[in-house]
Amino acid sequence: QLREKLAMPEYRRKRLRQLISMTPIVKVMEAHSGITGLIVEKTVVENEGKLDQFDAMWISSLCDSTAKGKPDIELVDMTSRFRTIDDIMEVTTKPIIFDGDTGGLTEHFVYTVRSLERMGVSAIIIEDKKGLKKNSLFGTEVKQTQATIEEMSAKIAAGKKAQLTDDFMIIARIESLILEKGMEDALERAFAFVKAGADGIMIHSRKKDPAEILEFCDKFREVDTVTPIVVVPSSFNIITEDELASHGVNIVIYANQLTRAAFPAMQKTAEDILKYHRAKEVDDRLMPIKQIITLIDEL
Amino acid sequence: QLREKLAMPEYRRKRLRQLISMTPIVKVMEAHSGITGLIVEKTVVENEGKLDQFDAMWISSLCDSTAKGKPDIELVDMTSRFRTIDDIMEVTTKPIIFDGDTGGLTEHFVYTVRSLERMGVSAIIIEDKKGLKKNSLFGTEVKQTQATIEEMSAKIAAGKKAQLTDDFMIIARIESLILEKGMEDALERAFAFVKAGADGIMIHSRKKDPAEILEFCDKFREVDTVTPIVVVPSSFNIITEDELASHGVNIVIYANQLTRAAFPAMQKTAEDILKYHRAKEVDDRLMPIKQIITLIDEL
Amino acid sequence: QLREKLAMPEYRRKRLRQLISMTPIVKVMEAHSGITGLIVEKTVVENEGKLDQFDAMWISSLCDSTAKGKPDIELVDMTSRFRTIDDIMEVTTKPIIFDGDTGGLTEHFVYTVRSLERMGVSAIIIEDKKGLKKNSLFGTEVKQTQATIEEMSAKIAAGKKAQLTDDFMIIARIESLILEKGMEDALERAFAFVKAGADGIMIHSRKKDPAEILEFCDKFREVDTVTPIVVVPSSFNIITEDELASHGVNIVIYANQLTRAAFPAMQKTAEDILKYHRAKEVDDRLMPIKQIITLIDEL
Amino acid sequence: QLREKLAMPEYRRKRLRQLISMTPIVKVMEAHSGITGLIVEKTVVENEGKLDQFDAMWISSLCDSTAKGKPDIELVDMTSRFRTIDDIMEVTTKPIIFDGDTGGLTEHFVYTVRSLERMGVSAIIIEDKKGLKKNSLFGTEVKQTQATIEEMSAKIAAGKKAQLTDDFMIIARIESLILEKGMEDALERAFAFVKAGADGIMIHSRKKDPAEILEFCDKFREVDTVTPIVVVPSSFNIITEDELASHGVNIVIYANQLTRAAFPAMQKTAEDILKYHRAKEVDDRLMPIKQIITLIDEL
Repeated sequence: QLREKLAMPEYRRKRLRQLISMTPIVKVMEAHSGITGLIVEKTVVENEGKLDQFDAMWISSLCDSTAKGKPDIELVDMTSRFRTIDDIMEVTTKPIIFDGDTGGLTEHFVYTVRSLERMGVSAIIIEDKKGLKKNSLFGTEVKQTQATIEEMSAKIAAGKKAQLTDDFMIIARIESLILEKGMEDALERAFAFVKAGADGIMIHSRKKDPAEILEFCDKFREVDTVTPIVVVPSSFNIITEDELASHGVNIVIYANQLTRAAFPAMQKTAEDILKYHRAKEVDDRLMPIKQIITLIDEL
Repeated sequence: QLREKLAMPEYRRKRLRQLISMTPIVKVMEAHSGITGLIVEKTVVENEGKLDQFDAMWISSLCDSTAKGKPDIELVDMTSRFRTIDDIMEVTTKPIIFDGDTGGLTEHFVYTVRSLERMGVSAIIIEDKKGLKKNSLFGTEVKQTQATIEEMSAKIAAGKKAQLTDDFMIIARIESLILEKGMEDALERAFAFVKAGADGIMIHSRKKDPAEILEFCDKFREVDTVTPIVVVPSSFNIITEDELASHGVNIVIYANQLTRAAFPAMQKTAEDILKYHRAKEVDDRLMPIKQIITLIDEL
Repeated sequence: QLREKLAMPEYRRKRLRQLISMTPIVKVMEAHSGITGLIVEKTVVENEGKLDQFDAMWISSLCDSTAKGKPDIELVDMTSRFRTIDDIMEVTTKPIIFDGDTGGLTEHFVYTVRSLERMGVSAIIIEDKKGLKKNSLFGTEVKQTQATIEEMSAKIAAGKKAQLTDDFMIIARIESLILEKGMEDALERAFAFVKAGADGIMIHSRKKDPAEILEFCDKFREVDTVTPIVVVPSSFNIITEDELASHGVNIVIYANQLTRAAFPAMQKTAEDILKYHRAKEVDDRLMPIKQIITLIDEL
Repeated sequence: QLREKLAMPEYRRKRLRQLISMTPIVKVMEAHSGITGLIVEKTVVENEGKLDQFDAMWISSLCDSTAKGKPDIELVDMTSRFRTIDDIMEVTTKPIIFDGDTGGLTEHFVYTVRSLERMGVSAIIIEDKKGLKKNSLFGTEVKQTQATIEEMSAKIAAGKKAQLTDDFMIIARIESLILEKGMEDALERAFAFVKAGADGIMIHSRKKDPAEILEFCDKFREVDTVTPIVVVPSSFNIITEDELASHGVNIVIYANQLTRAAFPAMQKTAEDILKYHRAKEVDDRLMPIKQIITLIDEL
């Protein structure tokens, strides 16, 4: 029961800060339901005699929206997303980082911080955009408005003021590289957001080449050696955890891979059943239920 | 917008009865979330110049529980399951058959019927078991108590009495073959449950060979040519929809294939990311997000 | 069961339009929970040999927020408010008018319309404000930004386009009198919003004297004799339903009286129990549970 | 923010045990929503120069069901009741005692314990009944089946085993006096349930005269001076907190008074508005919204 005790909010909430200080790089995998939470919780791999597992869960707004069949435009609201968190917390123990999109209006954001903290979430990441949020994978194809440094800083400061524990982290995500505003803008924002109280900086890029991410990390670390850096290598997936860590990255988030793995497998299964007018042909590649439910705890 | 209008409860609810009377066999696929609902809704396959698609969705208690990481013992309660229905209804139009497990206490079941009807669900299937429900895949390995004919008939009758529309269907699932009580018992129950008001009979088997299912259908059809028969060919998946139809089956449910397809794909992805310390190696077999979200309607 | 059948969305949704065409003035009372819904549903009064009852329910954002102990600043999000609607729909049959605040971003509003329609709600009222919503009872004490005619018209038109049935109504609420922008502005907006597709106009005032409300109604009716007018006589409560009807008002909403009646009764009870160190002294003025639950239907 | 910090589960959960050891008698008032939670949280009364307030909140299944307009037969399921807890926790800090009815099947009860503990609830009270639960106010008028000592003890023991913290309490409620099984039976059960692991005993009675309750307390205290005793003086409301404390009672629960105060006030208001065809006549006895919302925290 020692491990299960970690499910209690007081242990789970502060565990992210502990992991950041204890491990070279915190590995975080996307979860959007109880069962995906269990995959992140329980998947262990042996690498050259060493056991590897994920350290924490990322509740992506894109994947949560997609699971619900809704567009990723902050339409899936906080109450709906809190239910996703609840579903995951019910069956896991690892710490949770919550994708907070823009954080919404500052007057609402402070309540979100309080609710997440009470639930035992470890961190929220909010991005410096405003107005109708669109997913960053669209980059400059769709109209996006970046919040000013002042606006974003005010939101961060308000969130930090609302917070009741020392455990919870508010991490600022910088969209400057996505929106092609340049490295200088990204760095200026990073330092300003840390000054406003941000407990970490997430820097994002849509490029295949991790060069601009690494440049940011190096330049940020020249000035600030302490504030945790978060990256999400969806596009620049050529880079390894070790390389990221060597550039000062503290948290790597695999942001959408479970969603992207499940979908084609399900779609192909649906197609083949329609094609063969029975399930026999797909059955061999499906996992038996009895095997799946070994992951589910029976009390 | 004509198709979308079918999402309204008044059209969706009665559509299952319409389909039963219009098509040789109604094809139903499991859904347990918005996105799986969208797969059932939108997957179309061309077979020899003919377009094939699923007719309806099955909200399996096993798959709903598994998605939530909980054991399939009626622990995931009605309020939680209604939220799953809501999530699916928000983004689809096809009719819904709800897996009602044992239906719970009769005093509660009548409220469940009313709620489902109001939401626009077309049918509930309840099984003739009582006490702590365990999944039928465990067969006689675990202790299961079958309800008496009188108990089950009373529950069916109470449900039919509570019902407010002519659309909604209460379908009785017979566990006699699963529990090895014999064909006679199964048939006796089927006729009794129809007499009590059941709008359909689901007969289930754990055998690889569909023989006992076909025997049941043939013997039932000798006496009753009208009441819809439902089968769930999870074990006896060798049989095709045409063969089932030729024995008088009206509804075939593919009860858990999406869940079983998604899980191994996700697990392998998690393992490989842990193994390679980056997502590059898994990326090729993942579907791009931009492709997944083409399924999601933007209003 | 005839009456209960009205709970089905297809009957409930269109009932508001039927009532508007059938009765001199539609009487609507606030509900924010199952039990308050039952009070609106079942309270009947005999007036000079005639039976009087409410025709519909108003789901106030102020009262819903207050019931949840949250400020009325659109913090209680749609998912939370839909659960309130569900709770009410589960136990009542009368039609529902939903207080939609500003309606939110147009890109979100269209989904809200679809969800409400599917649930069987009859109408949404949205006000011509934008940015952080504050309750209108604060009038000009707090900063409020009125949406332009173009912005509000675009939102109305988008909502009407998204709508799938002929039943659902989108009613535009005009804040010009609250914000002291003058009668001309109010009327100009009213005509513009009708032109944009609004199915009704709600005109609001914080004055004790109903004069400006009546002036609006008279001037509006000179030009438009058809579009339903809605008023909420919280401040100008001196005016009767008959007088309002004679000025062309179609719907009168009693917007917060149940909330305001319950609170002081509960607070006094809490105080007196603390004072007397037992419940005896308060018991006489409390209703026995056995009497309260006579309102609750047992199936 | 010191007081607000108590809202965090780790402080709230253990606070009930602290209060029991620190105060002569813990005073608990019913809450069934955010606003009723705020009344329990913030009502303070001055008694002879001393400030008095409630120590904790009771989430009654009767009041929660009644608020939702549903009968009190365990129809309002755990997911629905957890949402009520969430609503209350979002806006309050005082500890919570949860009315767990029969606790349901033992196989489900263990999960309920885990969920409540995680949320930060301090205690659950379960009664020694089984089958369809009916409210105890009906006493012997309706058929009720008392669980055997063995059944109830097994449920308590399973709950205690599932529990992960030392904070959480499982309190056993004894229905022997309600069901007229006699004092001996009540005491035998009390000792057995404590032996099975119960952290407290609730003894209940429907009599106006507190004699049988006091006799139970005295006889229980002769043998067990430590285990907390809980009483709910709904019928025997003549007795004061001091008198109860002097007989060894540790917790007094005012179980339904807010619900019973609100209902007649709301019903009368609805009737009078129907009678007078306007709200003017009721307005004087209603509390202004501006006064009600002073209770609601703005961050």
